[in-house]
Amino acid sequence: MSQIIQGYAAKTPKSRLEPFSFNLPDLKADKIRVQVKYCGICHSDIAMIDNDFGFSSYPLVPGHEVIGTIVEVGSDVKGLRVGQTVGVGWQSGSCGVCEYCEKGKEHLCASEEDTIVGRFGGWAQELQVDAKFGVPVPEGLNCPEAAPLLCAGNTVFGPILHHNVKSTMRVAVVGIGGLGHLAVQFLAKWGCDVTAISSSHGKDEQARKLGAKHFIATKGSDELQKAANHFDFIISTVSADVNWRDYLAALRPEGTLVIVGITERDLQLPPLELILKEKRVSGGRASSPSDIAEMFAFADRNNVKAVIEKFPFTEIDSAVDKVRSGHVVHRAVLE
Amino acid sequence: MSQIIQGYAAKTPKSRLEPFSFNLPDLKADKIRVQVKYCGICHSDIAMIDNDFGFSSYPLVPGHEVIGTIVEVGSDVKGLRVGQTVGVGWQSGSCGVCEYCEKGKEHLCASEEDTIVGRFGGWAQELQVDAKFGVPVPEGLNCPEAAPLLCAGNTVFGPILHHNVKSTMRVAVVGIGGLGHLAVQFLAKWGCDVTAISSSHGKDEQARKLGAKHFIATKGSDELQKAANHFDFIISTVSADVNWRDYLAALRPEGTLVIVGITERDLQLPPLELILKEKRVSGGRASSPSDIAEMFAFADRNNVKAVIEKFPFTEIDSAVDKVRSGHVVHRAVLE
Repeated sequence: MSQIIQGYAAKTPKSRLEPFSFNLPDLKADKIRVQVKYCGICHSDIAMIDNDFGFSSYPLVPGHEVIGTIVEVGSDVKGLRVGQTVGVGWQSGSCGVCEYCEKGKEHLCASEEDTIVGRFGGWAQELQVDAKFGVPVPEGLNCPEAAPLLCAGNTVFGPILHHNVKSTMRVAVVGIGGLGHLAVQFLAKWGCDVTAISSSHGKDEQARKLGAKHFIATKGSDELQKAANHFDFIISTVSADVNWRDYLAALRPEGTLVIVGITERDLQLPPLELILKEKRVSGGRASSPSDIAEMFAFADRNNVKAVIEKFPFTEIDSAVDKVRSGHVVHRAVLE
Repeated sequence: MSQIIQGYAAKTPKSRLEPFSFNLPDLKADKIRVQVKYCGICHSDIAMIDNDFGFSSYPLVPGHEVIGTIVEVGSDVKGLRVGQTVGVGWQSGSCGVCEYCEKGKEHLCASEEDTIVGRFGGWAQELQVDAKFGVPVPEGLNCPEAAPLLCAGNTVFGPILHHNVKSTMRVAVVGIGGLGHLAVQFLAKWGCDVTAISSSHGKDEQARKLGAKHFIATKGSDELQKAANHFDFIISTVSADVNWRDYLAALRPEGTLVIVGITERDLQLPPLELILKEKRVSGGRASSPSDIAEMFAFADRNNVKAVIEKFPFTEIDSAVDKVRSGHVVHRAVLE
């Protein structure tokens, strides 16, 4: 028997959120039904509301940083039970049989299903997802502060895992916002020597509290140029177009620059900066359920958590406005 | 007692080669003296003659694909003896004590000394190099055909090693010239499924003889676009500016594009092409003596050799002209 769910939807591109009721179908054998307790507001929710990526469908129920309680499990589901707390991120389904699914790299599956693309997301009472994409939340994690780990956290933690960042490395985080403030914490707890990079020194003290040992401001200073040949790993979370030559120059030989922020213009990379010292550039993104589980365990053990501002679901529209205007430090979570 | 050596030098940028005599100093304790038997003509010799990189000094004696015989060893040299055949490539010295030298990655040493930068290269009777940079040539290798391995070969073999190319991979080589025709052979003998990529189908048959299973022509065809999501590893040897979006699109998830050709313009890389499937771009270059030794052993065991045209040293100027005009298939070697 289908259920009627209350949520919030954008009816057209760039519109305000409105209360919205919809039916969820009977639960399939491989899925779980999750009652939403907390859900983050991510910049990609707003990009989806605005149809920035070009593949939004309306009415659109955003929300892909979900912490909730399992209220029903499909008949074939193993390893999860009703009452368990799980997290759901950007992805909520995959084919299950391709080489990437078989290797635990479901985010690379060509049939990836995304939580808010073509289905209703977490700004609602409930959602249904493939059981594999409901990742159990360790009891020690504070749930509202863990919600942003599902997308913002996973987006920076994935590249740390996939590029074999070592604890002995000198690393830098570009942009100390929603993603960057988590990257600084993860890398500091990883054991790395962490430099925070931002346009100004406005976030200097804050970044040091989160674990950065050094701070570089890029605007009106030569601090970045002075850090030439310095970093083994740089993760860039910004979507602004920057001078990529400076960042490549700041890498040590064999160093890696990972971009997770989607810039409007193409990256401009001088070939000799890559060639002479075998430097590398890569894209990174929110990754697989097994990565999220590793991240949860690491965050739990090391007390990594998002700095959040909480809003009740009933104030969703003003919360979205506040995120849009950049007045939330660092992540907004609906409860 | 210093020795007078006969060689060929460019006296000014872009000039012809002229017979040139110079003194080599007494041999230092850690160096070897090598009598040149064969020396390749590399495009970077010509770039150095023309001062394209901006750091040429004149008179300039080019030549950094040397096969020769050790005629003297310094008093501290271990493991090499007079009479032994060795190869010398782009690099002929390093500090010996930095972390990169200690790890056997001498090409990343900040004090790298290059065979034809600030010293006289292999278009001469003899040269002196740090003993470490004279790499013994296996007896089975045919010397003239092995000479181009020292730079052209090493430039493509290094990235194959450093990016952990697996024998199960689908790989592509862009540009079937001096570097590319060796990359095709190495990768085919590695066990990979090799596609050769060139502007036209002119080199199709040739590439297949070298081990390519497939061929893609990029001009006036959609063959590259049809290969979207296909390759685990692409090595680009071309210096022409190409549409990098197409090459990124041709990579599979987690695939790597390595550029070893120095393009004039910056690479233009669309960020989403990197991000969504965690694709990677890297620079590659001629690498360390231990890599060259691995390459020699692999080439010897698998009969990898350059397709060469031989010229006597006395015809050096017309040989250089022929390389400049692109009329040598695939590498020129002086003897």
